[in-house]
Amino acid sequence: MALDLATLPTMDVAGRVPRLREALADAGCDGLLVTNLTNVRYLTGFTGSAALLLVTPDELVFVTDGRYRDQAALELGAGGVPAAIAVGRTSDEQRDHLQRPAKALRTIGLEAEDVTWAQQQRFADDWFPHADLVATGGVVEQLRQVKDAGEVARLEAACGIADDALATVRHRLTEGPTESEFALELEWEMRRAGAEAPSFDTIVASGPNGARPHHRAGTRRIEEGDLVVIDFGALVDGYHSDMTRTVMVGEPSATQARMYEVVQASQAAGVAAVRAGVTVKDVDEACRAVIREAGWEDLFIHGTGHGVGLDIHEAPRVSFSADATLADGHVVTVEPGVYLAEHGGVRIEDTVVVTPEGSRTLTRAPKGRDA
Amino acid sequence: MALDLATLPTMDVAGRVPRLREALADAGCDGLLVTNLTNVRYLTGFTGSAALLLVTPDELVFVTDGRYRDQAALELGAGGVPAAIAVGRTSDEQRDHLQRPAKALRTIGLEAEDVTWAQQQRFADDWFPHADLVATGGVVEQLRQVKDAGEVARLEAACGIADDALATVRHRLTEGPTESEFALELEWEMRRAGAEAPSFDTIVASGPNGARPHHRAGTRRIEEGDLVVIDFGALVDGYHSDMTRTVMVGEPSATQARMYEVVQASQAAGVAAVRAGVTVKDVDEACRAVIREAGWEDLFIHGTGHGVGLDIHEAPRVSFSADATLADGHVVTVEPGVYLAEHGGVRIEDTVVVTPEGSRTLTRAPKGRDA
Repeated sequence: MALDLATLPTMDVAGRVPRLREALADAGCDGLLVTNLTNVRYLTGFTGSAALLLVTPDELVFVTDGRYRDQAALELGAGGVPAAIAVGRTSDEQRDHLQRPAKALRTIGLEAEDVTWAQQQRFADDWFPHADLVATGGVVEQLRQVKDAGEVARLEAACGIADDALATVRHRLTEGPTESEFALELEWEMRRAGAEAPSFDTIVASGPNGARPHHRAGTRRIEEGDLVVIDFGALVDGYHSDMTRTVMVGEPSATQARMYEVVQASQAAGVAAVRAGVTVKDVDEACRAVIREAGWEDLFIHGTGHGVGLDIHEAPRVSFSADATLADGHVVTVEPGVYLAEHGGVRIEDTVVVTPEGSRTLTRAPKGRDA
Repeated sequence: MALDLATLPTMDVAGRVPRLREALADAGCDGLLVTNLTNVRYLTGFTGSAALLLVTPDELVFVTDGRYRDQAALELGAGGVPAAIAVGRTSDEQRDHLQRPAKALRTIGLEAEDVTWAQQQRFADDWFPHADLVATGGVVEQLRQVKDAGEVARLEAACGIADDALATVRHRLTEGPTESEFALELEWEMRRAGAEAPSFDTIVASGPNGARPHHRAGTRRIEEGDLVVIDFGALVDGYHSDMTRTVMVGEPSATQARMYEVVQASQAAGVAAVRAGVTVKDVDEACRAVIREAGWEDLFIHGTGHGVGLDIHEAPRVSFSADATLADGHVVTVEPGVYLAEHGGVRIEDTVVVTPEGSRTLTRAPKGRDA
């Protein structure tokens, strides 16, 4: 592997549960049962596929199954997370480990957008019949918005791997690969450089496919005259990178050249608007104003961006329909686009860290249409 | 792409909703709101990432968002599925499309292991306040157990791609790759042959890592004297293949040779026990008896297998702790293993189609420890 995680700054994992405890009162519960595995990972460092975490004012109880006994001790220990680790081989055993610490709670918050109805019924009827279960939303996700130095370093490493992979394979666009073949080359290069995986299904949308924002990568061959939208990223230690570049293969038509110019200006305006204290609506409007000015407002058919971290899409959403204010340490994308059935699509996307003065861009691949 | 889906037999998609309607009474509901996207795909052929399907005795209403208007019409049309397709840009619009057909239902089943608590609350309070919501489990999953000829052909194509990929890269095990490098080579070959993706995170567990059944693929270099457990598959048109082979690099120790022999005999006994009308307990016991005979029963620490189809793990589970009887058209894995900390692991897995006479094996890579 080209990437050595040990060289990156450590993350402050142990500081997260204390911050969560401060948020419980606002969430309307005495304690929170964390079932979302990404949130469990954030709070404890545990990367396995089965765990429950009960956070009470005085206790922190981590329950997993027999497969993860050693791994849980190792990973929670590495982060200095002072949890009691309990192993339950069956659902009943796991319940038994949680019932004692839950006894002190009158209200237990569940992550209502994560827990299934079947789980909620089991918790209510069998696990915690003494308590009121409270539907909470986004409690841990709110905390996850602000990244520490270790998290930013992982995102930056992931973005760097994606930059390098595109630089390595970009010239192959002129050799007539299919979209899928080009996507596979990109993913291969990222894996060789130490990415755990692509951070989502790579999008390579060429020619008319570029006009469909939900297109992934298919059997169409890339040819002269195509705009090619390439939207992809790398996964490093659980952190996702996200970048879009649009490459012109051959000479652009006048419309294609104008599309590129407008989107590039829009994207630059969006990034320039990013700063701690600015609302996400204002960033969206900075992008949208440039496209509106060009007469194409109807062609910018999605929001401007989203937070990125342990999930590829996380809070805050950057959109005209969202209510949030950017803060120091948020990491968001800025990705306006225009889509024209006969000409294709142009989208340009960077991932940036919000700072008090503005932002720092983590995705650094050149943006020119034929860079 | 080497694989042309158009050459495979078609699937009987349109026949599935009528079978589901016959199962509603047993599930205790007048109609079912299908939220699980894999079940929506099974019932309609729709492959997008957002849809709801309401099945009533007389109506079939499919709701998606604006991104999928054309794709839904195309995919449901291709399968001859007679659904009313409605597009709702917002959650409220989607609700409005479902309220009229839901009016006739006194009880509406929800998929309780899929729907979140937050969704269930919205359905109960806002979408369907007139009806009783019923928690159902596995209604569509029961139907999915029996595969038609088109489904078996897709599974067989996926298994064939995995066979060929292993044959192509197997010799590289002796060149000292890391587990991750070898996994990447396998995945690359499957993608080149037309797989949409690996059907799950490829497992390459070498030497001591082989003794940990949940190990994936890491930075360890494969070396002389290793048993290497390779558990992987390909995804074709949504259908998953699943195969494990264990390869000996260099000469085995006496214990390693015996482990291999015992697991190979156990696996063959399991496959020989498969037949329509046999219980999954009996198949499990056929595998387990051979390992017990060798004195290693405690080292076979997982169930014998599982169904495979649109999910990598689906019904029926093949285990001593499951209650199910195999039927014509079920597709299941048979995958016993033994794990010894000092010697590594051996697991051998085939995917087979259950027939009235026995079974037909879809995974055909050679099984010898150094084949």
